[in-house]
Amino acid sequence: MLSDPSAALSVVFDKDGVLEQIGDGKGYIDMSTVDAATSSKISEAVKLKGGAFVEAPVSGSKKPAEDGQLVILAAGDKKLYDEMVPAFDVLGKKSFFLGEIGNGAKMKLVVNMIMGSMMNSLSEGLCLADKSGLSPQTLLDVLDLGAIANPMFKLKGPAMLQGSYSPAFPLKHQQKDMRLALALGDENAVSMPVSAAANEAFKKARSLGLGDLDFSAVYEVVKGAGGSGQA
Amino acid sequence: MLSDPSAALSVVFDKDGVLEQIGDGKGYIDMSTVDAATSSKISEAVKLKGGAFVEAPVSGSKKPAEDGQLVILAAGDKKLYDEMVPAFDVLGKKSFFLGEIGNGAKMKLVVNMIMGSMMNSLSEGLCLADKSGLSPQTLLDVLDLGAIANPMFKLKGPAMLQGSYSPAFPLKHQQKDMRLALALGDENAVSMPVSAAANEAFKKARSLGLGDLDFSAVYEVVKGAGGSGQA
Amino acid sequence: MLSDPSAALSVVFDKDGVLEQIGDGKGYIDMSTVDAATSSKISEAVKLKGGAFVEAPVSGSKKPAEDGQLVILAAGDKKLYDEMVPAFDVLGKKSFFLGEIGNGAKMKLVVNMIMGSMMNSLSEGLCLADKSGLSPQTLLDVLDLGAIANPMFKLKGPAMLQGSYSPAFPLKHQQKDMRLALALGDENAVSMPVSAAANEAFKKARSLGLGDLDFSAVYEVVKGAGGSGQA
Amino acid sequence: MLSDPSAALSVVFDKDGVLEQIGDGKGYIDMSTVDAATSSKISEAVKLKGGAFVEAPVSGSKKPAEDGQLVILAAGDKKLYDEMVPAFDVLGKKSFFLGEIGNGAKMKLVVNMIMGSMMNSLSEGLCLADKSGLSPQTLLDVLDLGAIANPMFKLKGPAMLQGSYSPAFPLKHQQKDMRLALALGDENAVSMPVSAAANEAFKKARSLGLGDLDFSAVYEVVKGAGGSGQA
Repeated sequence: MLSDPSAALSVVFDKDGVLEQIGDGKGYIDMSTVDAATSSKISEAVKLKGGAFVEAPVSGSKKPAEDGQLVILAAGDKKLYDEMVPAFDVLGKKSFFLGEIGNGAKMKLVVNMIMGSMMNSLSEGLCLADKSGLSPQTLLDVLDLGAIANPMFKLKGPAMLQGSYSPAFPLKHQQKDMRLALALGDENAVSMPVSAAANEAFKKARSLGLGDLDFSAVYEVVKGAGGSGQA
Repeated sequence: MLSDPSAALSVVFDKDGVLEQIGDGKGYIDMSTVDAATSSKISEAVKLKGGAFVEAPVSGSKKPAEDGQLVILAAGDKKLYDEMVPAFDVLGKKSFFLGEIGNGAKMKLVVNMIMGSMMNSLSEGLCLADKSGLSPQTLLDVLDLGAIANPMFKLKGPAMLQGSYSPAFPLKHQQKDMRLALALGDENAVSMPVSAAANEAFKKARSLGLGDLDFSAVYEVVKGAGGSGQA
Repeated sequence: MLSDPSAALSVVFDKDGVLEQIGDGKGYIDMSTVDAATSSKISEAVKLKGGAFVEAPVSGSKKPAEDGQLVILAAGDKKLYDEMVPAFDVLGKKSFFLGEIGNGAKMKLVVNMIMGSMMNSLSEGLCLADKSGLSPQTLLDVLDLGAIANPMFKLKGPAMLQGSYSPAFPLKHQQKDMRLALALGDENAVSMPVSAAANEAFKKARSLGLGDLDFSAVYEVVKGAGGSGQA
Repeated sequence: MLSDPSAALSVVFDKDGVLEQIGDGKGYIDMSTVDAATSSKISEAVKLKGGAFVEAPVSGSKKPAEDGQLVILAAGDKKLYDEMVPAFDVLGKKSFFLGEIGNGAKMKLVVNMIMGSMMNSLSEGLCLADKSGLSPQTLLDVLDLGAIANPMFKLKGPAMLQGSYSPAFPLKHQQKDMRLALALGDENAVSMPVSAAANEAFKKARSLGLGDLDFSAVYEVVKGAGGSGQA
């Protein structure tokens, strides 16, 4: 579970790297979150040597990792994946096999796109409540008891009302993921007007200098303020 | 908890109605979901007679009602509300006092607006997954394990994938609520581009004859089909 | 061509008003821009007395009026309209008969909706040019020589670049017309996502206090400024 | 004025190509519409040999070319451009010098983005008129007499009403230009919600198989039809 594509490549291709030992009957699993090109490059090199490869990026951050509650989005060699399920079951609460190399990253984009639109929906709702004479905090309380209650609203909502945007997931990364998800939609001729509107709001936030705050800082854009939030 | 505004008015204003007995030291609570004008008319008449009035529409449908799990959105006379809390605690899992008459209906609009945008986000995500070579069912499974897991996605998602839109909440009513929420935003100069985009998708669904299906039938619009869903 | 609905009603219904003299073989034409309800009320009263009525609001402001270059949007009694065409041909460069009472006002809404979206398109283009290292003034020059050249871009564009928004048509009225056009679309189940996005930008402008400036001040919203424009 | 990037490169780099003769005191002008990378590659090679280079894509199609009415969007070596103005004045009605290499292509993207949003605005207006009991043809006539009259509406409008979409500019190319313009906005943090909404409509048109028709076929999407237009 390495930090970035160059680290992932180095561990495989550099001296004393994975490629020197991999071969028939051996497998390599990389749990880093990297782009499809990096993943494919590693996959091809490993397979050329006779080995098997699985990419297995995870969904979830520090706390779920400590608690063994990660969600594992695996793709690549199905046989190797099957052998690894018992290990994945220790590392995470659930693992998925998603098919061909690159599908793990795609699945994360789709999930993050939905998450980004939902964050905009919440922001618009909080702002509408506030301007209409309702308490935004009460809106959060009502939401938390109903059919659309979810951990993100519960966690981020109160911080947003305080203008506190400590970056668990920086807005510029969220916007990048929405851009990539929309690009994936473009490739496949999928029209997604709600996600597109949400993406433009995140871009507005970037233009106001909020890119390094948490992605929930899009609330500042909806409120119409010019970047008064704190990291 | 009456069916509509005319029933709510009849029970108050007709012969042998509430107004004939209401007076000093007495209170009247109407738990129907009615428009602000109806609620105000009842409130004024009751107060003129010296009585106290609370509107208390509920969030939640049949099953939560049977289980005592409704959420009660009360507004009007605070003293009467306070006296009624023990009763509300039996009827529902939680009650809120939202201030002046009309605020109960407004809160429902805000909640339903967020819900409508989220339904569009889910639809776009399912469609993007499908067209990108990912399993929409697996997307639902992944969503259900993460930070944006919510009962609506869990309940509606699988039915949407089957094209089954039995109307728990008809699409035309959802769209009407989004229109009213956007109108409320217009009055208060709140710009809500994501909700506006979602509203246009629901309108497209209406134009395709899907208005009487469940509001999750907006998925058909995102998929680009022309109304192939079943009620 | 009276200033508002109350003036239009007064001239008809008050003492010594139109109704006292109207009758068989006589016609009344009102060239004011009023709402459909006002127009209908006048129409019905005139017809009850045996007279004929035509509403004939105009498109175009002071200069076209002086030059006889107005566009006349007539509706109501077709026979009376036909008799009046020679007179309309003096007052305006062109008159249209649009059918039933109320259609004149509807036609103005549709035209203004397109105009509002186009103003947003121009604003986004100017902003994109500016941020991408192109001269916005050169963009205006290029536009003026091509297939989308139009008088509005030519007139408003240079003023927008100077941040000068002297209100020929106040933004709040433009936004009201877009709201009404979208409401007309809602009645008839017409999904209009581009107009809806433009409407939200105008609402954002209102929320920033730009409602009394010219509707071209929506450019300030696209630029991301908080109301720095001048009237 | 060559057909595509590979032709543009071939004329420069192949045997007997431009590079063999270019040198101090000589200049090369390419009037093809190519991407920035192609243009830069040619520019660098020419300058390395001591020559000067100007890219000069044009705006306008066959008829303007025959009539000498093209608009020339030049960029690169200013001195060479200045020397060429007399020649450009014969070829086109107007030439612009836009600065550094690549700016010609960017200017075309911005213009086409505005054009694409306007085509959506027109489509929404025509559809709203139709569904509201107004004649779409009369709307075109009214538009043509007012402040937003433009050659594109005049040319394309009547054909759209007939469902005739003979591809002067294919929809898939229009959508590609909008995607690239939005990507340019993304790079520079420019939020463009109206263009984004228009882009999603063009994507919907592609998903319905309308990509090879004229870009005005987006009207079919607004109408809600599933691709009934003819090329």
